[in-house]
Amino acid sequence: MSALSEIGEDELVRGLVRLLPAGGRVVAGPGDDCAAVRVPKHGELQLLKTDCLVENVHFLREHASEKVGRKALCRTISDVAACGGRPDSALVTIAAPAELDVAWLQKFYTGLRRAAKAHGVSIVGGETARSPGGIFVSIALTGWVKLGRFVLRGGGCARDAVFVTGQLGGSLASGRHLSFTPRVAEARWLVKNFRVHAMMDLSDGLGADLPRLADASRKGYAIDLDAIPCHRGCSVEQAVGDGEDYELLFAVAPSDAPKLEKAWRKEFPRLPLTRIGSLLANRKARTPLAAGYAHFSDCQPAGNSGS
Amino acid sequence: MSALSEIGEDELVRGLVRLLPAGGRVVAGPGDDCAAVRVPKHGELQLLKTDCLVENVHFLREHASEKVGRKALCRTISDVAACGGRPDSALVTIAAPAELDVAWLQKFYTGLRRAAKAHGVSIVGGETARSPGGIFVSIALTGWVKLGRFVLRGGGCARDAVFVTGQLGGSLASGRHLSFTPRVAEARWLVKNFRVHAMMDLSDGLGADLPRLADASRKGYAIDLDAIPCHRGCSVEQAVGDGEDYELLFAVAPSDAPKLEKAWRKEFPRLPLTRIGSLLANRKARTPLAAGYAHFSDCQPAGNSGS
Repeated sequence: MSALSEIGEDELVRGLVRLLPAGGRVVAGPGDDCAAVRVPKHGELQLLKTDCLVENVHFLREHASEKVGRKALCRTISDVAACGGRPDSALVTIAAPAELDVAWLQKFYTGLRRAAKAHGVSIVGGETARSPGGIFVSIALTGWVKLGRFVLRGGGCARDAVFVTGQLGGSLASGRHLSFTPRVAEARWLVKNFRVHAMMDLSDGLGADLPRLADASRKGYAIDLDAIPCHRGCSVEQAVGDGEDYELLFAVAPSDAPKLEKAWRKEFPRLPLTRIGSLLANRKARTPLAAGYAHFSDCQPAGNSGS
Repeated sequence: MSALSEIGEDELVRGLVRLLPAGGRVVAGPGDDCAAVRVPKHGELQLLKTDCLVENVHFLREHASEKVGRKALCRTISDVAACGGRPDSALVTIAAPAELDVAWLQKFYTGLRRAAKAHGVSIVGGETARSPGGIFVSIALTGWVKLGRFVLRGGGCARDAVFVTGQLGGSLASGRHLSFTPRVAEARWLVKNFRVHAMMDLSDGLGADLPRLADASRKGYAIDLDAIPCHRGCSVEQAVGDGEDYELLFAVAPSDAPKLEKAWRKEFPRLPLTRIGSLLANRKARTPLAAGYAHFSDCQPAGNSGS
């Protein structure tokens, strides 16, 4: 075991970036002032996302760092998916205390690398720094989406059918928050085959995230609480409030709903798709839902995080 | 004065991103799962850079947070410049303790916004999180460079003339590390008008950074210590070791040097350009320089940082 303080930054970085996946469009990877990548195609939008994981807020040091690395990248991939895009290039920033065991960082990068490989992401650069407190990780990810397939939160219409993928609740208690699969394939299939009016990924829980989608769309909503797909052993309150589900929440025209449900079952037979309610023209008409996690508030348990 | 814990994240983010500069190519800015930007031109490389500032390592809370915000962005702009590029879109990630005064963050964003405006950068998104320790800031920046003008550290040739812009040393003591100007115009002029073989920005001091350029280029170097341009009151040791200069270090063919020096004086009469030595074919032949700052080492003063 050796601590970070015993080795130099240059040596550390050289070791960590070895074997990182890099696609054919990466002209310059880690180790220079900037990374450089070729732009894939004309006529696509570039998606940009950043996210962070803070020790003792989003993870504990005793968590397997391979899973923390995986999660750090998969959270941003989930956001790119939620816009209908495919992930491309990632930058990794880590501030770590000098006494941190180098093995922790190495396993963190193993998790990063495997997740990157699984989703076709190139890790093109990053930055390391000393932290006087705990570990802080930030990932920036680029992605691409065809202009006509780009989906935001704000396009929801009155009477739209509201869907969620998978099952909700208990992610932190079960450890699923460290092993979830970002719904890239599902989201890309959705935007390719249907007019998705609004979409986002569920990171803070339906109770916090649905109001965000509704606010952006200037709509209200009626939710059938009994329809909410709960993970085994979870109450509706947990499904609505726990967060960290990383499932898709989206809205389509009600006339598209039956065809979508049928096609979904054929395409993704193992992942449930559930219609949980509708958007409403009246912004203030909203089924009461338990509130999701709010940042900076002292009364909430650590372990959850932003959009 | 109100602390972060008294307001919600959504409200905070809404307040902070108001008035952030966004260019005409920004399709979706802060507030959604991802930002989305149009790609400017075909046939350019995209530059990607991330960087971080950690409280009590790179800045103190009593520093004016407007200057900290400015510095956070300008450091990444300096890296894009060092590759010959122009900066484009930035993502801002902040983890902050719940007791932090909201005014600190507001002023931080004022600094960010002004620096972004001055350099034509769009701030397209970001993420906030709670930090149990100090403040942590990470910036990710994209940039663009024409294929033929992209410069890395590794292209230096034997006998190349080695130049630095400006004057070195004393940046931390004088506060210049909070107010430096990234050399975007100078670097773009250089790569447009000359074949720059290798270039980087001086963030860790010539003593740490020149060996990196030489290593990447597989060359040695002979430096005339008396030629190193020192800021007033600084010794050569300080000029070589202090770091945070954010000046350009670059190598061109010796035959280009006289023409470059003449053209530079005409184009940038107020910024010195100094030839400090040459690259050598023998990798091991290197003028001894005081070492720059090394991360994670306990014996160094706080206040400096990575490439």
